[in-house]
Amino acid sequence: MSTSDPVINLQTLIRCPSVTPAEGGALSALEAMLLPLGFKVERMVATEPGMPDIENLYARLGNKGPHLMFAGHTDVVPPGDEASWSHPPFAAMIAGGELFGRGAVDMKGGIACFVAAVARHIEKHGMPKGSISFLITGDEEGPAVNGTEKLLKWAAERGERWDACLVGEPTNPDALGDMIKIGRRGSVSGKVSVLGVQGHAAYPHLADNPLRGLLPLASALMDPPFDTGTDNFPPSNLEVTSVDVGNPATNVIPARASFAFNIRFNDTWTADTVKAEILRRLDAAAAGSPLRPGRDPVRYEITWAERPSHVFLTRNNALIASLSEAVETVTGRTPQLSTTGGTSDARFIKDYCPVVEFGLVGQTMHMVDERVALADLEILTQIYGTFISRWFDNALLP
Amino acid sequence: MSTSDPVINLQTLIRCPSVTPAEGGALSALEAMLLPLGFKVERMVATEPGMPDIENLYARLGNKGPHLMFAGHTDVVPPGDEASWSHPPFAAMIAGGELFGRGAVDMKGGIACFVAAVARHIEKHGMPKGSISFLITGDEEGPAVNGTEKLLKWAAERGERWDACLVGEPTNPDALGDMIKIGRRGSVSGKVSVLGVQGHAAYPHLADNPLRGLLPLASALMDPPFDTGTDNFPPSNLEVTSVDVGNPATNVIPARASFAFNIRFNDTWTADTVKAEILRRLDAAAAGSPLRPGRDPVRYEITWAERPSHVFLTRNNALIASLSEAVETVTGRTPQLSTTGGTSDARFIKDYCPVVEFGLVGQTMHMVDERVALADLEILTQIYGTFISRWFDNALLP
Repeated sequence: MSTSDPVINLQTLIRCPSVTPAEGGALSALEAMLLPLGFKVERMVATEPGMPDIENLYARLGNKGPHLMFAGHTDVVPPGDEASWSHPPFAAMIAGGELFGRGAVDMKGGIACFVAAVARHIEKHGMPKGSISFLITGDEEGPAVNGTEKLLKWAAERGERWDACLVGEPTNPDALGDMIKIGRRGSVSGKVSVLGVQGHAAYPHLADNPLRGLLPLASALMDPPFDTGTDNFPPSNLEVTSVDVGNPATNVIPARASFAFNIRFNDTWTADTVKAEILRRLDAAAAGSPLRPGRDPVRYEITWAERPSHVFLTRNNALIASLSEAVETVTGRTPQLSTTGGTSDARFIKDYCPVVEFGLVGQTMHMVDERVALADLEILTQIYGTFISRWFDNALLP
Repeated sequence: MSTSDPVINLQTLIRCPSVTPAEGGALSALEAMLLPLGFKVERMVATEPGMPDIENLYARLGNKGPHLMFAGHTDVVPPGDEASWSHPPFAAMIAGGELFGRGAVDMKGGIACFVAAVARHIEKHGMPKGSISFLITGDEEGPAVNGTEKLLKWAAERGERWDACLVGEPTNPDALGDMIKIGRRGSVSGKVSVLGVQGHAAYPHLADNPLRGLLPLASALMDPPFDTGTDNFPPSNLEVTSVDVGNPATNVIPARASFAFNIRFNDTWTADTVKAEILRRLDAAAAGSPLRPGRDPVRYEITWAERPSHVFLTRNNALIASLSEAVETVTGRTPQLSTTGGTSDARFIKDYCPVVEFGLVGQTMHMVDERVALADLEILTQIYGTFISRWFDNALLP
């Protein structure tokens, strides 16, 4: 089958200019690859007031269990300065053994390889011993409001159930086989405004400098550390990312000061308990600041950013072992099982089934001249193929 | 003499629109008042590259000691929204026993009263027993670069020496007789920039959040207090007046953060020793911050605002007692001897002779409808007149 070649699949996908929120023909191209393989393909448009409609795709091959999901996205970040590219960002040109184009590694490449792996599996072994589905969104690089989260809910409401999921994001820092992601830290952001009383710097007793309140509050969020890490996670870490007053007059005490923060938290916490701990620290620091002796507690307001990212850790040995062994079999390397890095759509999927992430090498993602070695596309296709076989074998063990 | 009426003197001065840096005819009007009294009047234009030229005036009556200086300024702050004034700001209209106009209390009123006091002294007692001079600038409300400081230097270079000085700024919070200023705190301002390394909030070990450096540095300047005050001064006090990063992305650790501060310091310190203490605190806080365990010292840069204001305290009993007794004689009230408030041109004069400050009630200074009670002009003229007689008597005691 033509779809057994990941290079051709990827060229087809890159030539669709699917910069978020545009579908750009990418999902239609994917649909055209999946239909001949026997997939039942459905397109789902997600809407949200004040946001552009987003096209998503769900496709399933087979109708019995066990059920393996491959998840990802066809939308890409903008190409930036197109004149700086060695080759046009949507031309999918090959040069020096590399395929150039926006989305080559993040993550049309992962989709292209999984399609090829399924095609080869059918060629070699016939239909899989259960079901394989593609859950592909067009809103991962954007606000992610009309994407994976809604698509999962939509599919689940129609009765879809999954036993495991592989997300095809680029997870390898340097070389194929470096790293499988088996979890992600959670993320919570917020903004704290401290209220004071404006006045002249020569009459501080008539004013209430909000910075005398802010400094201890901001410090209390960064010290002491929230924890020392867990078996599978690095320590939780909070960074105050901005402090802003904007007072140009050095002889004036300002009326208000604010700071923003972001915490990446491990499985010691949930989003709710970490918020509670943040409030506890703020209240304790507000109650008695050495910078404001004898004053009433610091008056502050906190605003949480919408939609925290929840922490998760996948403990499904069949899934992790199948993937890890596939990587070792094809590359001879033992991948690190990691929970580092930012957030991904896996944070939504973990509510439905065990999920891991493995894809290409991420070095050029989001950059000018994003590109992938043709050899890597072949290796990843083989890893994915080996994984599919092993996972069904493992899942079907009595 | 017509100049013995402070109301007429003040109306003449207010009708000269001398908003800094404009002379507006105010110094010429003053010159016209002083010449008939026998003063030798000199006009001195001060220049500075990149700044407007400023006219100043020095006038002396008599040529022997003891020598009493009256210091002040004819420039005024802008009137603001003229439509909001009950009477035009440069019309010097009288209504309800009050004289309205920009500069009525700050401080054309003080000049008008001192001229009247000298005129009455000559009428009643003849020429003073020593010399009286007016040192009047047109650059007190502006940057004060081409004003009192240069005028003093210019006069001193021509051989002028003074035994005491009275500055006619409005010093009374509520009523005439409240307060004589016998000193002022010093003032030093600066800005500290903390250098970090930008990065993603999910990878803090690859970045160096400058706010982890800034918070302890800023706190160290405000706690502990610099001192507990002295016999004549309130405690020194430092306020961090702004912190600014301007980082809109909560998932990004910024590269740089800065804060501004201002300290009002008492006679425990000089500008140099207070700067040294600030640097000592910054270096100590930079060396080991609990927010940056195991990291190199915080890298920071400090920029001092130009020209600190030096602290001073006048201890000349003859000057203080003469003025205090004059206030008591005329008003029946004992004035508080204070060192509170912001800075004034007295900080320059204290390098040449003992200096105190006493003038009108300051409540309407810099405001719309700046105004003075006609009764206060008469009382202040009497206080100044009594002070002149007493001061010469005291200064001539063997």
